[in-house]
Amino acid sequence: MRVQVAIIGAGPAGLLLGQLLHRAGIDAIILERRSADHVLSRIRAGVLEQGTVDLLDEAGVGRRLHAEGLVHGGIELCFDGQRHRIDLQGLTGKSVTVYGQTEVTRDLMDARAAAGAETVYEAEQVSLHDFDGDSPVVRYRKDGVEHEIRCDFIAGCDGYHGVSRASVPSGALETYERIYPFGWLGILADVKPVSDELIYANHERGFALCSMRSRTRSRYYVQCSLDDRIEDWPDERFWEELKRRLDHEAVANLVTGPSIEKSIAPLRSFVAEPMRFGRLMLAGDAAHIVPPTGAKGLNLAASDIHYLSRALIDHYRSGTMREIDHYSARCLRRVWKSVRFSWWMTSMMHRFPDTGEFGQKIQEAELDYVVGSTAASTSLAENYVGLPFEV
Amino acid sequence: MRVQVAIIGAGPAGLLLGQLLHRAGIDAIILERRSADHVLSRIRAGVLEQGTVDLLDEAGVGRRLHAEGLVHGGIELCFDGQRHRIDLQGLTGKSVTVYGQTEVTRDLMDARAAAGAETVYEAEQVSLHDFDGDSPVVRYRKDGVEHEIRCDFIAGCDGYHGVSRASVPSGALETYERIYPFGWLGILADVKPVSDELIYANHERGFALCSMRSRTRSRYYVQCSLDDRIEDWPDERFWEELKRRLDHEAVANLVTGPSIEKSIAPLRSFVAEPMRFGRLMLAGDAAHIVPPTGAKGLNLAASDIHYLSRALIDHYRSGTMREIDHYSARCLRRVWKSVRFSWWMTSMMHRFPDTGEFGQKIQEAELDYVVGSTAASTSLAENYVGLPFEV
Repeated sequence: MRVQVAIIGAGPAGLLLGQLLHRAGIDAIILERRSADHVLSRIRAGVLEQGTVDLLDEAGVGRRLHAEGLVHGGIELCFDGQRHRIDLQGLTGKSVTVYGQTEVTRDLMDARAAAGAETVYEAEQVSLHDFDGDSPVVRYRKDGVEHEIRCDFIAGCDGYHGVSRASVPSGALETYERIYPFGWLGILADVKPVSDELIYANHERGFALCSMRSRTRSRYYVQCSLDDRIEDWPDERFWEELKRRLDHEAVANLVTGPSIEKSIAPLRSFVAEPMRFGRLMLAGDAAHIVPPTGAKGLNLAASDIHYLSRALIDHYRSGTMREIDHYSARCLRRVWKSVRFSWWMTSMMHRFPDTGEFGQKIQEAELDYVVGSTAASTSLAENYVGLPFEV
Repeated sequence: MRVQVAIIGAGPAGLLLGQLLHRAGIDAIILERRSADHVLSRIRAGVLEQGTVDLLDEAGVGRRLHAEGLVHGGIELCFDGQRHRIDLQGLTGKSVTVYGQTEVTRDLMDARAAAGAETVYEAEQVSLHDFDGDSPVVRYRKDGVEHEIRCDFIAGCDGYHGVSRASVPSGALETYERIYPFGWLGILADVKPVSDELIYANHERGFALCSMRSRTRSRYYVQCSLDDRIEDWPDERFWEELKRRLDHEAVANLVTGPSIEKSIAPLRSFVAEPMRFGRLMLAGDAAHIVPPTGAKGLNLAASDIHYLSRALIDHYRSGTMREIDHYSARCLRRVWKSVRFSWWMTSMMHRFPDTGEFGQKIQEAELDYVVGSTAASTSLAENYVGLPFEV
């Protein structure tokens, strides 16, 4: 078969691209290694930048998001036993929306189904070919049958472990990585969130985050050791540890309950450059990973898709490669700024084994400065709500 | 003999305190281990914050500073081969003044001599006693004769290696330290500065700084290894290395010439807490050291002296210890913010052996963000010109 664009991966990046292309009359197929149910079962980020919300609106999938998402005009930083609010809305005129990645994915799946566009789930042995020429080819197996797709472009939206980045000839990629010496232990529980807004806590015992998915479902995290296992953390121990890292008021208001999900995630920064190889363009986690502090992962995938959809639409309108040629550099400039912000938030909020007491004091001085300086608060806020796509 | 305040150290901190106390009618003696000529021979910082200039004016020693100092409304950040100006004046309404620490010291010495106030140079074997009670005692030898001074307070302005901090009982001090894995190789040369304003350069080969003492005397630095020795760096090698780290325009404008001073300095962050023990108050380098990136060392000493002079004046007016009691906490809040800024500027501008390529990319992303965001530029600028004394 032949399509204009073959999209590898049916996570939010691939689905969003598919939807934007569909609305522009560009024909795309999506191949996904997993089942639809598996994709929907992955619990991920939940904070959407204004620009991400705008892009989902543009893709025509914003209805439920606006009905059910929680608009947050601020976040709170907790340190030295006190909470300090960063007034995102007041400082930047923008807000963020709490709406789970799973919900975004579901809305995009529904829209794709309604549009009658094709997604092949459980596509096995996907392989990418000839993307250094004008006629790339994608092959895969489905239900024991070999398929071949000829296309103009391949969009690699299949995450860090996907086949897309792995298909790039070694030597063509520069990669940059930072592994952080701790993890996040997270739980999901059907209890009322401790506060209306997110609380990011710096504490001598380690970082903690009070987040949520809805008004009745909370998502909490504590920094843990990379050696920790889930079995080491029964619910009681988790709640106990969380309370130690929060201020008195939060502890008084915290409602605990049985966890419905519990997991440990490592923290990593990773960037692969460039993001385009001939007619293969990488987007989202396929090209870069950020630690979750600052909630940038999904939003960065959305901004890649913003650039990529515009470049492809321009190509089919103008018949030129001018926007495709700029894709990688345009993405990477914003990618690195988000990578920097995520690294900075991570560095400021966590306990690091190797920086000692000096590091802890520097963090407290930085937090004290950030909450006291309008310029510094604005700098944090403008990154948190998302830097503009066009910079 | 008996005085109200015994000041240990005749560097700019001690001399400035002496002058402010003198103008308030408070009787102080200054003891200095070295000769006046030795004190004046030490080449140090050269960038004064607005608040430091105001304090020198208040001390009555601003005349020559205003006549000869160079007022700078901006600094330049150089990275990726390009220079970007941070408009200090436009962003904060404040500027900095380039005027060597040696000149500040000389002006203060002259004012002290004119006031007829006593400074004992080459005071040997200075020792501090009984500062945990109401009647501290300072002893020293001069020309073979033992002297004893009884006083109400001791001001420890004698630097990192001085006797003041060393006199505090072990266990009463918490210290915080970060040693940076590189040094600054600096030269002084009687050549026209390469630019009207300071240039801070981030380069793959390491940091460089183009500074100045006057319109005809330049001060340049390059980041070097801690293993380097002065003998490894003949002038030609220094100029060659400096050029490699600057942009084309700077290289074209750089005037080289024989060095009249050349030295290698290590970089360190150090803070001792608290800054007061009974009736002994530490100020300046006796309590804290910052790396020179950001030009905070002398300015931080000045802000300590601001707080200390006010506390002492309040004591002699009110007869209470209320301001003395706040001295340490008030200083330290601002100290840690300056320590943080100096650490941040150092971290952003230097090549670190242990952060690798990821670290270099983060620096470039941070610099790209800082020069492009008004909030981030303002944050840098407000720290560079100096946070307000009263926070």
